[in-house]
Amino acid sequence: MGSDSDWPHVKAAADVLKEFGVPFEAHVMSAHRTPDKVAQYAAQAESRGIKVILAAAGGAAHLAGVVAAHTTLPVIGIPVPTNLAGGLDSLLSMVQMPGDIPVATVGVGSGGPRNAGLLAISVLALSDSKLAEKLKDFRKRLVEKVAARDQALQTKINEE
Amino acid sequence: MGSDSDWPHVKAAADVLKEFGVPFEAHVMSAHRTPDKVAQYAAQAESRGIKVILAAAGGAAHLAGVVAAHTTLPVIGIPVPTNLAGGLDSLLSMVQMPGDIPVATVGVGSGGPRNAGLLAISVLALSDSKLAEKLKDFRKRLVEKVAARDQALQTKINEE
Amino acid sequence: MGSDSDWPHVKAAADVLKEFGVPFEAHVMSAHRTPDKVAQYAAQAESRGIKVILAAAGGAAHLAGVVAAHTTLPVIGIPVPTNLAGGLDSLLSMVQMPGDIPVATVGVGSGGPRNAGLLAISVLALSDSKLAEKLKDFRKRLVEKVAARDQALQTKINEE
Amino acid sequence: MGSDSDWPHVKAAADVLKEFGVPFEAHVMSAHRTPDKVAQYAAQAESRGIKVILAAAGGAAHLAGVVAAHTTLPVIGIPVPTNLAGGLDSLLSMVQMPGDIPVATVGVGSGGPRNAGLLAISVLALSDSKLAEKLKDFRKRLVEKVAARDQALQTKINEE
Amino acid sequence: MGSDSDWPHVKAAADVLKEFGVPFEAHVMSAHRTPDKVAQYAAQAESRGIKVILAAAGGAAHLAGVVAAHTTLPVIGIPVPTNLAGGLDSLLSMVQMPGDIPVATVGVGSGGPRNAGLLAISVLALSDSKLAEKLKDFRKRLVEKVAARDQALQTKINEE
Amino acid sequence: MGSDSDWPHVKAAADVLKEFGVPFEAHVMSAHRTPDKVAQYAAQAESRGIKVILAAAGGAAHLAGVVAAHTTLPVIGIPVPTNLAGGLDSLLSMVQMPGDIPVATVGVGSGGPRNAGLLAISVLALSDSKLAEKLKDFRKRLVEKVAARDQALQTKINEE
Amino acid sequence: MGSDSDWPHVKAAADVLKEFGVPFEAHVMSAHRTPDKVAQYAAQAESRGIKVILAAAGGAAHLAGVVAAHTTLPVIGIPVPTNLAGGLDSLLSMVQMPGDIPVATVGVGSGGPRNAGLLAISVLALSDSKLAEKLKDFRKRLVEKVAARDQALQTKINEE
Amino acid sequence: MGSDSDWPHVKAAADVLKEFGVPFEAHVMSAHRTPDKVAQYAAQAESRGIKVILAAAGGAAHLAGVVAAHTTLPVIGIPVPTNLAGGLDSLLSMVQMPGDIPVATVGVGSGGPRNAGLLAISVLALSDSKLAEKLKDFRKRLVEKVAARDQALQTKINEE
Repeated sequence: MGSDSDWPHVKAAADVLKEFGVPFEAHVMSAHRTPDKVAQYAAQAESRGIKVILAAAGGAAHLAGVVAAHTTLPVIGIPVPTNLAGGLDSLLSMVQMPGDIPVATVGVGSGGPRNAGLLAISVLALSDSKLAEKLKDFRKRLVEKVAARDQALQTKINEE
Repeated sequence: MGSDSDWPHVKAAADVLKEFGVPFEAHVMSAHRTPDKVAQYAAQAESRGIKVILAAAGGAAHLAGVVAAHTTLPVIGIPVPTNLAGGLDSLLSMVQMPGDIPVATVGVGSGGPRNAGLLAISVLALSDSKLAEKLKDFRKRLVEKVAARDQALQTKINEE
Repeated sequence: MGSDSDWPHVKAAADVLKEFGVPFEAHVMSAHRTPDKVAQYAAQAESRGIKVILAAAGGAAHLAGVVAAHTTLPVIGIPVPTNLAGGLDSLLSMVQMPGDIPVATVGVGSGGPRNAGLLAISVLALSDSKLAEKLKDFRKRLVEKVAARDQALQTKINEE
Repeated sequence: MGSDSDWPHVKAAADVLKEFGVPFEAHVMSAHRTPDKVAQYAAQAESRGIKVILAAAGGAAHLAGVVAAHTTLPVIGIPVPTNLAGGLDSLLSMVQMPGDIPVATVGVGSGGPRNAGLLAISVLALSDSKLAEKLKDFRKRLVEKVAARDQALQTKINEE
Repeated sequence: MGSDSDWPHVKAAADVLKEFGVPFEAHVMSAHRTPDKVAQYAAQAESRGIKVILAAAGGAAHLAGVVAAHTTLPVIGIPVPTNLAGGLDSLLSMVQMPGDIPVATVGVGSGGPRNAGLLAISVLALSDSKLAEKLKDFRKRLVEKVAARDQALQTKINEE
Repeated sequence: MGSDSDWPHVKAAADVLKEFGVPFEAHVMSAHRTPDKVAQYAAQAESRGIKVILAAAGGAAHLAGVVAAHTTLPVIGIPVPTNLAGGLDSLLSMVQMPGDIPVATVGVGSGGPRNAGLLAISVLALSDSKLAEKLKDFRKRLVEKVAARDQALQTKINEE
Repeated sequence: MGSDSDWPHVKAAADVLKEFGVPFEAHVMSAHRTPDKVAQYAAQAESRGIKVILAAAGGAAHLAGVVAAHTTLPVIGIPVPTNLAGGLDSLLSMVQMPGDIPVATVGVGSGGPRNAGLLAISVLALSDSKLAEKLKDFRKRLVEKVAARDQALQTKINEE
Repeated sequence: MGSDSDWPHVKAAADVLKEFGVPFEAHVMSAHRTPDKVAQYAAQAESRGIKVILAAAGGAAHLAGVVAAHTTLPVIGIPVPTNLAGGLDSLLSMVQMPGDIPVATVGVGSGGPRNAGLLAISVLALSDSKLAEKLKDFRKRLVEKVAARDQALQTKINEE
């Protein structure tokens, strides 16, 4: 992430990785304040055994693009909300990459970071059958969760 | 893609897959006009050996999200330009997925489809070392291409 | 609705239906987390005697479109406010449906859900003369309410 | 429609009504230039046997709202594209109605007018079983059309 | 104003009219809930001796346009803030009037209502030399006020 | 107007003034390139017998605001379309004036300049009964024009 | 700045100037309420030894443009956040200057004012080697700060 | 510039530099395709005697920010128009830099590149009195040019 103030937004991604037992590391580094560190980190990631890189940033939000420029690993961008239309700047700055260097962008707002984690898992699951199984289980539990919420709503409505 | 009118936008993704020798299939199916076909296609994709699904759509652009709801494979969304602010509707409809079901979204406009193809390649390259090598070569050739364009610009400026 | 967190937004629609004595049911089901349930619900709605379906969702907000894809009943979409420009994403994702599959969209924000309920009533009133009468009475009472508020304002201004 | 220049946008709605054999009338009248005519037309529509009113307008696009203020019939708004972000003004002006007076809004752009016609048909079909049947047939033919387009794409790709 | 909840926004306009000794009346009436009252009010305003009409509304914000359709008096529109991008909907709905029927629109937000009052005064001042004088005095006092604030800032900076 | 390239946009305002027999003058002067000229022009306008000033500009579009800062006459702003979302920049730059210095803004796009002229006429008509009469006649002719267009549409539809 | 309410936004610029030992003065003056003072200030700035002018304003935000019109010194614009999409109006009004009269615009929001100060320093540093050295030291300390924050994050994650 | 397709947009900046006799060099290099070259170029610019760097890019438009991260020289960003709302993405991606690393951004569209060149000149003129003189002359000629255009308009109006 570009700033430690982004941690609350990134935590949902970290939590889902933990939940699925996927090891990860989290770092504060800035595309603008520490460009060399970002370049070095991205360039060395593959040889260090990293498979997917998640990058969260707000505003001009260059972090994901700069990381993507220095690695061929899949890079997932998490646009962090700002006060400009709720993060429209972060979203556009991250997703509108020029042809040749992609950033896989998720939504700006509460669901985005969680989805960044799940997207990483879906990528890793392609070559990890246990993880693929866990992801399918997760989806099944979602169905149960939504059913339970629907049930709770019925109770609530009847009580009103 | 949701409509055959989206093909010109999707072709750039297909071209990059061909260029990298990655086999693919392309289909017209609509989240709204043929929802059962989309659901069935997405649900069976993994067992048919498909690794990554790209979905292009414009406007409400639900295709990628509907596909993602029926598979745990990585789904890459290509927002197709429209007349509403150049495709801002397509982009928001695609990227702002709720937590739990991610869509890896690329940019709306000329570079987006190409990047969707390259993103798929970066995902596949994680478990295909030859493809990974090709992707690294591609990046090297990019450097040469940009250098050639810079050289051409120097000539142009000197001639003016 | 796609999530139980949408209930406060949907309640205004439910309240107006109650006020007019129109029976209804409310469910939490998600176009992305429980796509099969949504498809089944929409497909069976007509045979269960349902006349109009209201669907509330935020962000990518695919629920209304997915419901509309599985039924020929009128579908009314309620875009739920988000932090992105106050729900511009929900609105565009819901209203910008491709030709052939319409969603009748109401406004994002406080008046929207109430209007979704009233729109359903105006549709049902076409073949229910008592309901049509109630709707006309409702409009007359609106005139009185606004007159009362105008009167209250006169008092307030005079007192200032 | 508010201006005869809106006819090309409204024609798609008229065409779909013709296609389904639904009788209709089309008029140019303006919420701003001929407010009394609009008020009178809307107020008398129900007694003239009209069931649903479609209103197309661009920019401030008050027509649908003004019609809705003078009738309890369902009013469907068709926001006409403009040069301001492709019709974002028309869309917001039409859909953001205050609570109590709904306008069922469809998308701005090519699919919107067609969907307005289809939405009217889905409303009328609630009390017209033949029309309901036609609408179901229409949906089935859509599936065939999309399949044909998919087939055409396969041919095209193979030939390339 | 369209709703009594708009009063806090309108009050700044009323205050400036009071400050300049310009008599006014304020009413709650709604373009959608009480369209006939609005039409009647606007149509009779000139003969009742009213010179300028101010109309405040939010969202679809048709009030000013509907008033303008029923009078040839100058109509000043005050777009009321909403949650959609802070009132972008109100602004566009009010200002984007079709040719032939103008609404003089002021800004959405804190300065707008005050400016609506001042705009009315500048119009009235064209045929009221005392009011014109007061307006010129007001401008002179503005210069003094800003100078005082600048002075206060100097003190503040020196103290820091 | 700020630039002679704005003339096509301003011409519609000039045409309506001619149509109503209202004398006017038109000038190219720029808030940024010739600020002193603008200040001088605005400051002397009243003593030269000018009643209303129209200012057209695009982009940052400061002209109307700068004119308003130097006169207490009513200033009408015409936001000129640009390539940024069709002139959203011009509109916001013109209408979002701070409290104390109003600009009466009309719509960006085809109807705006015409409305600027008509707004000026409605202001001048307050103290010119002949002009007021002409404006009322103009409104009556509008009703006839719209009726003629409606008639033409009926013919067109019948012929199709 | 255009209003003393902008001071909290401008203070970050002032703080960075203090931090680098660059003398400055701060004033409240308004492009609209005190146009002559702004014109005079800008016109005399160079002869008073001022090198760079920073102008902060919100909404129509004409201050920077008006200053730039009266001086050939570099003018840096600080768009102040508003309630309209978080200051999109301020940003567009400031940055979209017509050709010939530039305003160097920084971001709207928390980082903008600080960056305005740093931009001024980078300009002044071109002819002040000590300041240039300080700016390079500042950049080095940034690297250390980010590293410290990364370290703090590691501790935090381990403790969780 | 990030791509040679940006040259038409950058040329206006180059032309103004030529016009003022300021030596410059122009290069195609990409923040994403050739990140090392950009980093190296920016890092060495100062020692090569470069005073100001202009960076033009569209979409995610990271070039200016990446350059700014590697130098303490003033960096001027030129957002290149795109199809997304005319370049709103380029503008936001460029201007919304985080605190500590400024980019002096000019407008997106026709005037922007020209203003980037003029901004560079105003910066260089601080320590080059001849250039400062030329800039003042340029401003004077602007006044004459606008006066000539005003004269041409008068002729045009009289002839109509």
